[in-house]
Amino acid sequence: MQIKKLLPLAVALAALPALGFAQEVDTTPPNEDIGYIFTTFMFLVTGFLVMWMAAGFTMLEAGLVRQKNTTMQLMKNISLFSIAAVMYYLIGYNLMYPGDGWTITNVLGAFGSASMEPVGLADTETDLTYASVGSDFYFQLMFCATTASIVSGTLAERIKLWPFLIFVVVLTGLIYPIQASWKWGGGFLDANYGFLDFAGSTVVHSVGGWAALAGALILGPRLGKYGKAGAIHPMPGANLPLATLGTFILWMGWFGFNGGSQLYMDTAGNVADISRIFANTNTAAAGGALAALILTKALYGKPDLTMVLNGALAGLVSITAEPLTPGLGMATIIGAIGGVIVVFAVPFLDKLKIDDVVGAIPVHLFAGIWGTIAVVLTNGDASLFGQLISIVIVGVFVFVASAVVWFILKAVMGIRVSEEEEVQGLDIGELGMEAYPEFAKG
Amino acid sequence: MQIKKLLPLAVALAALPALGFAQEVDTTPPNEDIGYIFTTFMFLVTGFLVMWMAAGFTMLEAGLVRQKNTTMQLMKNISLFSIAAVMYYLIGYNLMYPGDGWTITNVLGAFGSASMEPVGLADTETDLTYASVGSDFYFQLMFCATTASIVSGTLAERIKLWPFLIFVVVLTGLIYPIQASWKWGGGFLDANYGFLDFAGSTVVHSVGGWAALAGALILGPRLGKYGKAGAIHPMPGANLPLATLGTFILWMGWFGFNGGSQLYMDTAGNVADISRIFANTNTAAAGGALAALILTKALYGKPDLTMVLNGALAGLVSITAEPLTPGLGMATIIGAIGGVIVVFAVPFLDKLKIDDVVGAIPVHLFAGIWGTIAVVLTNGDASLFGQLISIVIVGVFVFVASAVVWFILKAVMGIRVSEEEEVQGLDIGELGMEAYPEFAKG
Amino acid sequence: MQIKKLLPLAVALAALPALGFAQEVDTTPPNEDIGYIFTTFMFLVTGFLVMWMAAGFTMLEAGLVRQKNTTMQLMKNISLFSIAAVMYYLIGYNLMYPGDGWTITNVLGAFGSASMEPVGLADTETDLTYASVGSDFYFQLMFCATTASIVSGTLAERIKLWPFLIFVVVLTGLIYPIQASWKWGGGFLDANYGFLDFAGSTVVHSVGGWAALAGALILGPRLGKYGKAGAIHPMPGANLPLATLGTFILWMGWFGFNGGSQLYMDTAGNVADISRIFANTNTAAAGGALAALILTKALYGKPDLTMVLNGALAGLVSITAEPLTPGLGMATIIGAIGGVIVVFAVPFLDKLKIDDVVGAIPVHLFAGIWGTIAVVLTNGDASLFGQLISIVIVGVFVFVASAVVWFILKAVMGIRVSEEEEVQGLDIGELGMEAYPEFAKG
Repeated sequence: MQIKKLLPLAVALAALPALGFAQEVDTTPPNEDIGYIFTTFMFLVTGFLVMWMAAGFTMLEAGLVRQKNTTMQLMKNISLFSIAAVMYYLIGYNLMYPGDGWTITNVLGAFGSASMEPVGLADTETDLTYASVGSDFYFQLMFCATTASIVSGTLAERIKLWPFLIFVVVLTGLIYPIQASWKWGGGFLDANYGFLDFAGSTVVHSVGGWAALAGALILGPRLGKYGKAGAIHPMPGANLPLATLGTFILWMGWFGFNGGSQLYMDTAGNVADISRIFANTNTAAAGGALAALILTKALYGKPDLTMVLNGALAGLVSITAEPLTPGLGMATIIGAIGGVIVVFAVPFLDKLKIDDVVGAIPVHLFAGIWGTIAVVLTNGDASLFGQLISIVIVGVFVFVASAVVWFILKAVMGIRVSEEEEVQGLDIGELGMEAYPEFAKG
Repeated sequence: MQIKKLLPLAVALAALPALGFAQEVDTTPPNEDIGYIFTTFMFLVTGFLVMWMAAGFTMLEAGLVRQKNTTMQLMKNISLFSIAAVMYYLIGYNLMYPGDGWTITNVLGAFGSASMEPVGLADTETDLTYASVGSDFYFQLMFCATTASIVSGTLAERIKLWPFLIFVVVLTGLIYPIQASWKWGGGFLDANYGFLDFAGSTVVHSVGGWAALAGALILGPRLGKYGKAGAIHPMPGANLPLATLGTFILWMGWFGFNGGSQLYMDTAGNVADISRIFANTNTAAAGGALAALILTKALYGKPDLTMVLNGALAGLVSITAEPLTPGLGMATIIGAIGGVIVVFAVPFLDKLKIDDVVGAIPVHLFAGIWGTIAVVLTNGDASLFGQLISIVIVGVFVFVASAVVWFILKAVMGIRVSEEEEVQGLDIGELGMEAYPEFAKG
Repeated sequence: MQIKKLLPLAVALAALPALGFAQEVDTTPPNEDIGYIFTTFMFLVTGFLVMWMAAGFTMLEAGLVRQKNTTMQLMKNISLFSIAAVMYYLIGYNLMYPGDGWTITNVLGAFGSASMEPVGLADTETDLTYASVGSDFYFQLMFCATTASIVSGTLAERIKLWPFLIFVVVLTGLIYPIQASWKWGGGFLDANYGFLDFAGSTVVHSVGGWAALAGALILGPRLGKYGKAGAIHPMPGANLPLATLGTFILWMGWFGFNGGSQLYMDTAGNVADISRIFANTNTAAAGGALAALILTKALYGKPDLTMVLNGALAGLVSITAEPLTPGLGMATIIGAIGGVIVVFAVPFLDKLKIDDVVGAIPVHLFAGIWGTIAVVLTNGDASLFGQLISIVIVGVFVFVASAVVWFILKAVMGIRVSEEEEVQGLDIGELGMEAYPEFAKG
């Protein structure tokens, strides 16, 4: 870092008459604002990483379905992300953080004239807390959307578009925020049971998993998936590079998911904690991938790429409930156990004839439960009882609420495409548009 | 955040004899530099997000052309981004921020010995302003490159490679920076008309759209696109997962595009504004996507994925001129109207026999105009007259300048491939390289 | 930035009884911590960008192999990244930064009980240096993983999975960290020869290239690649959009790779330097791409997309040894020369019958050598002797060590698949899983 010469260009620029910034700029933030700027910017950076996970789910699912159902998977994913954005704004955010309680004014305020008002603080004149409301809203919204993304993979290749999207409306507007408020909104799971779930192995991932499980049971398996005498017919994904890309996107985005959940970056201690979370998150994913690699090789003679991808994701889900207190070694082991769970859970679900197209239930529900329990291994503040009771309460609520919604949708409009349409592919039937129209199908 | 034990590894590392950092490190930045560091780093982070949009355009376009023209679309996109980098450095940046005016010295300084000198400040000894020149250059360059990316999609499947690249040289070196200087360089649109265009619905997006429109008119439609008696033959894109990926990439990158255009992150007020911009940008995209989803369902019976993708992009373009002052509700509506515009504008262009392969003119030009006008809805400093006159002035300049360049290129070297080559595909004719050489074409 | 009204929503939120953040939050970081927070957060942001490069290599390679070997390429890449994470934790990091020397305790400490302890500082009570250990570990790990990614492309389409993965264990656990310690761990190349390699043209890229070269020589070329009388049979990649996506991902990730290597963001001078590095990195890539575009057009009549992609990457490798001191003009030229090297080196390797499937040796080894030498052009502290001797020492060590490992693996378990399997494709033979099972192969 020796002193460099100023270049003429820089001189010219520095000499500019302030180009649209007419007033003098004071580059000194008031000292008490520095932590606020750090934390807010941290929410924005980790928030765009979590937003990026929406693309990850989309690519993962588009790669793991058959080509004839790919456009549908794309459509469902971009639509569910958009619905989550609107519903979480209209109801979800207020429901999740109800302040003095779930009164009409608190929760539905956004419907009134307030809906035309900005979220976020405009100015330092406003009541400073620890970060801007806008950045918190942005960050929390992405968690809500993630929950919905989980559901779409399981139910692929046979569900109709519109009932699925209506389910997403309810999930992102009501089911997710209600249960999230119990922990992250300061509700009873937090206050009474000491439930610990740092970034949402239960609050996000298992919730998506329960909703998907309810849907899978009510929707039934794909035609021809389960034959006579327990035969299981594999229906391999059409585009594994896309599925792998999706996994890498999710892996990357998870640094934001877990790291941002530290919620503060205003001190050296907090940023050091975020660093540890990044390192643990990465190694847990690696542990999950390697466990699935070795285990599928041992079990089947050849390792299975889709299991390795899901193993990495299960490692990520497993570390999500407590990415801070484990050491790197323990984080690797927690992730690896997640990978092992996936390898055994996928055929287990098939034995039960629960058809989960992309393996989202093993990854998000089973590894989510494991991760929530694993908190007690490294965090002395967690109790096994508090973790288990919270898993059960959240699970029962989400499963029952989802099942009710699915049943209503089934009764009112039907949730499953016709047999002909399923055979022909949903892309033609529901959307009239092929994902790969020019490529001959083998 | 309880106190953790130091691990031996960390102790060992902390005890290291400074490993290549021989001198004592003072971790205290001079207080007046903190805002400078915040703003500069913000430019770098938002800048790499905007750079990422180049990949988004590439994937979007590669997915929406037919397979026989895919390699060309890839080649054009990586080349145009590279050309923008060089031209904006050599001329564009100086032209856009001319300081005391467009003198030879000011604008062409980079050609002289200065071209070997670095952009950017080397040291705290230099004249501190509000952020490093290097970060500003990096950020602004990406906007210039975005403008060029918009053009390539419209003209796909029939334009020759080299005339297109020469057009990009002129667009990024001259046309874009000249008109950008009128607003962002403190020029007459800013000074005389009070034109407001926060992140460039007009200055970036409609400019790309006008250049594309001029090209499309002079180039003519693809062979067989428009039949007798007004028949319009759809030519669907070969790879919708790529197009969807591209849309998500653009959506993500747009947080940088709009957020970084706040230009300061040195105070709590500024970072809170950036947060609001992120939230508004997201919800406008969601609004655009949902509007296209619902409207295409209503109009055609089945929703159209490519319209939903373009709806999201139109929502993003629409909010770009003013992502700060709207509330979330208004931002959603502004974006949704962008989505509606796209759904009606695509068939409208087809009726005029203007062949826009990816829908860039509806998305970037029409929604860009809408977004520029919509500023008056929420920002009291904007005047309808100032917005309209600026739209017209920029439009006339860019359209005429682009048309002149296209006509010259047509006269000198021809801009369109032969009919045989167009039928066979440009990948073979122009590049001799197929994008998917092993896959049978149906 | 006028003052905005507080919205009811914000008010409601501000009034919340602290929602899980029970204690008062003091938003004022101790002043001496601010630089620590800046630098640590910079490592995290640039670190996730470098992590993203793993996805870039995966897509690049998946696009450049033939479809029958694609699943293998995906499997190798996600596995090698996971292995690097574990090995660098267990041995590599300690070996690279050994403190008082390579004692058993220093290097293998992580194997003991310490392995259950976290990397990273938990709290401000710990010994503050310039950034958190966790963030440094995270950032440095990604460089180690990058080295391994380079190798997998060269050896594609004929190497067995398991010997490759075992090689990665040795490369990431021993070979990479040992030689990296010579420079970045304060070792003799740094201390005695004044070797300068800012972000690793030699320490990362040429190391990957040497390891790949040793492997390619021992493994031999693909069946049918080289015919009689010097005939060279092209085997084009199956999916060029993926390869282009991979290139853009790498381009984006490289901002983290080079920018983060500044190692400090605690002052205005440091962040200005990082800005300059971002700008130089971008323009070097553009220079490499344009050089390859123009040169392949001149040489072959039609420009070659895969050369343009590799040209961009070679530009990036070339600027990596010194991304700070060049001006933009010089950085463009340094990158362009990298692009020229690739265009000539690819056919040169073919003439030698060294079969490098994706061109990783030209890009990472040859351009890496060029970049390391080019440091003397702009950095007065570099000596040509110091650069050359370091290139040679690192090259000899890595090439010999890699060759020994490859020979042992060949003797013990064989490194090459059978001829039938190679003809049929490794996806079926090694993994039993096709990448694109539904698409007819032409």
